[in-house]
Amino acid sequence: MAVAISIAEAMTQASWIRRMFERGTELKAKFGAENVFDLSLGNPFLEPPSQYFDVLRELSERRHEGLHRYMANAGFPAVRDAIAKKLNDNGTFPGLTGDGVIMSVGAGGGLNVALKTILNPGEEVIVLSPHFVEYEFYIRNHGGVPVPVETDENFDIDVETLARGITPKTKGIIVNSPNNPTGRLYPRASVAAMVSLVREREREYGHPIYVLADEPYRELVYVDDVPPSAASLHDNGLLIYSWSKSLSIPGERIGYIAINPRIDDPMVFSSGLTFSTRTLGFVNAPATSQLAVLRLLDVTIDIGWYKQRRDRFLEGLRQAGYDVVTPEGTFYIFPRCPIPDDVAFVNRAIEEKVLLVPGSGFGRKGYFRISYCVDDATTEGAIAALRRVVA
Amino acid sequence: MAVAISIAEAMTQASWIRRMFERGTELKAKFGAENVFDLSLGNPFLEPPSQYFDVLRELSERRHEGLHRYMANAGFPAVRDAIAKKLNDNGTFPGLTGDGVIMSVGAGGGLNVALKTILNPGEEVIVLSPHFVEYEFYIRNHGGVPVPVETDENFDIDVETLARGITPKTKGIIVNSPNNPTGRLYPRASVAAMVSLVREREREYGHPIYVLADEPYRELVYVDDVPPSAASLHDNGLLIYSWSKSLSIPGERIGYIAINPRIDDPMVFSSGLTFSTRTLGFVNAPATSQLAVLRLLDVTIDIGWYKQRRDRFLEGLRQAGYDVVTPEGTFYIFPRCPIPDDVAFVNRAIEEKVLLVPGSGFGRKGYFRISYCVDDATTEGAIAALRRVVA
Repeated sequence: MAVAISIAEAMTQASWIRRMFERGTELKAKFGAENVFDLSLGNPFLEPPSQYFDVLRELSERRHEGLHRYMANAGFPAVRDAIAKKLNDNGTFPGLTGDGVIMSVGAGGGLNVALKTILNPGEEVIVLSPHFVEYEFYIRNHGGVPVPVETDENFDIDVETLARGITPKTKGIIVNSPNNPTGRLYPRASVAAMVSLVREREREYGHPIYVLADEPYRELVYVDDVPPSAASLHDNGLLIYSWSKSLSIPGERIGYIAINPRIDDPMVFSSGLTFSTRTLGFVNAPATSQLAVLRLLDVTIDIGWYKQRRDRFLEGLRQAGYDVVTPEGTFYIFPRCPIPDDVAFVNRAIEEKVLLVPGSGFGRKGYFRISYCVDDATTEGAIAALRRVVA
Repeated sequence: MAVAISIAEAMTQASWIRRMFERGTELKAKFGAENVFDLSLGNPFLEPPSQYFDVLRELSERRHEGLHRYMANAGFPAVRDAIAKKLNDNGTFPGLTGDGVIMSVGAGGGLNVALKTILNPGEEVIVLSPHFVEYEFYIRNHGGVPVPVETDENFDIDVETLARGITPKTKGIIVNSPNNPTGRLYPRASVAAMVSLVREREREYGHPIYVLADEPYRELVYVDDVPPSAASLHDNGLLIYSWSKSLSIPGERIGYIAINPRIDDPMVFSSGLTFSTRTLGFVNAPATSQLAVLRLLDVTIDIGWYKQRRDRFLEGLRQAGYDVVTPEGTFYIFPRCPIPDDVAFVNRAIEEKVLLVPGSGFGRKGYFRISYCVDDATTEGAIAALRRVVA
């Protein structure tokens, strides 16, 4: 065996997204890219805002300032301070200082750093399902055990089911809102009920249960009333953020972990996250991108562009008879399949040259995920094709 | 306990480099930065080459090309192909194609990805010592057991000692040449003897033993005859590279893993490394830096600048009576302490306001490490102070 057994096994179950990517490549070669409607990839479609390119140009002129050297593993102090100020100003973490912000290599890097920092071998981490499958790998990387807990039929938190999922071994809960794949923003009341349950169990078990709020889609929301982060409602809360979606720079790998200032022993936590950033080989978040986001803390891509697509897809899907829960955010829609077998349905859609991801790939059979990071022609072509699929 | 037990324990043994950093901060506050001679940090001193800034400016003008989106996890195909061509042209890996190059988040990221990909729980990885202490964390991250094997009194590979260190559980050997902390470039004959031993043991045990050649200092050499990479001499070889030193951009986190094309099952290996890049949360190497290095494959900072400092420190140290093995590369010198207790010696040096790292921090007592990433004034001040230490 060339590679480790766990790697070889995991690779045989190549992700659905990957399989769709490969089918898509075949189909595009055969029929032409313009005749294939690829809704399988969550790859931000828009270019970064113009200010991002302005910062690159300005950095190209700052040739004598040592900006590309190693910095403290947690990141540039000025960047950490500015993020702390923003999270104070918007009420997420009153009292947060730069010490409580650790710059990360995207949210994927941030989650691995956070999980490495909290997990002893065999401890459990709950993921609210349907969920981004990478979470299971991230948890196992650090000796943890992923415990998927089903949300309800509207993909909202089901506190009774969650109560059965929390055990004395539970060390954390990953809360991804707005959610990939469902697009749901967990309602204020659900998050409050969850936090109250978690707090009760912390007291009962006598140890912290961390809420890891993974919020890379925080700005991609289409409602006015956006509930606070679960990490701000629970004292033992960590907010994991990435600019991949809000600035359309996923290739750059830039994000942060912010520590709720009311956490048990915040300075030890800050040191622990910094230590894990260093020893997992991230070392620090990329310098140029740290400097870029410092200048762009109040900038986002055009959220309206995504909202327009969401609305058009919702309309098209419902007119065709699909059963859809309205997503409040992200660039995903997670409709119910018209037949119970989601894999069969996705294969049927391929005949109409539409690429989808089956719900099985997110731990929920009988559904499929649409990513609407696509242009107008693909939007209209895909809607027409999805109509033919159920005709 | 807020953080994981392993993290809390590791943090109590904060690295020597970190402790020196903190002592340095105190001393600088007390006596003024210009009166403290800090030789403790391996942080490239020079600015990146001017061409690096030219690339940033050019990228600021390419606003409509989707360059900052997700790409394949292994990196941009054009970048991987260009690196493969270079490693063909310079004879490192004849027959290598872009498939065998995986872009990484620096060498720290590359090593973690490589170790994750090869290690089953409990397997051993040999590190030739003295060594960069982070290796031990990297190996343990993925369930491996670090096995330091001493090099000889000139820090050259001692094949007999190595032979005793290799067991049926050995899965890999990290070979860091030029070496941090010694500056040694392992001689051609030593590397050949090591490879011959490893090959013999592979046959005996019936499984591969990977040579992980960690070569971020490859271009920082001060001799004409540079031996080939250990990864090119051993079929089961992986070359791990970073541009942190050669382009002076350690804050940007950009490197690669290249697979010896004669490895067992190269395509499985390529997929495995790509899978680990994805699931460890690196996702991909930063896009902007991938595009930058593509344009700078034949560019380095001024190596002569470092050579001048190496020569000046060697002269100054020897004149003061220090026993020093001439380093052929890196920006480190690893002299013997004039007293057996290296920690006591380093504390004595602090009285003269020189910051060093004791050899204990690299697994070799009785020595100390100098990093000569410093300006002229610090060089001369440090040499004078090191003379006073032994006066």
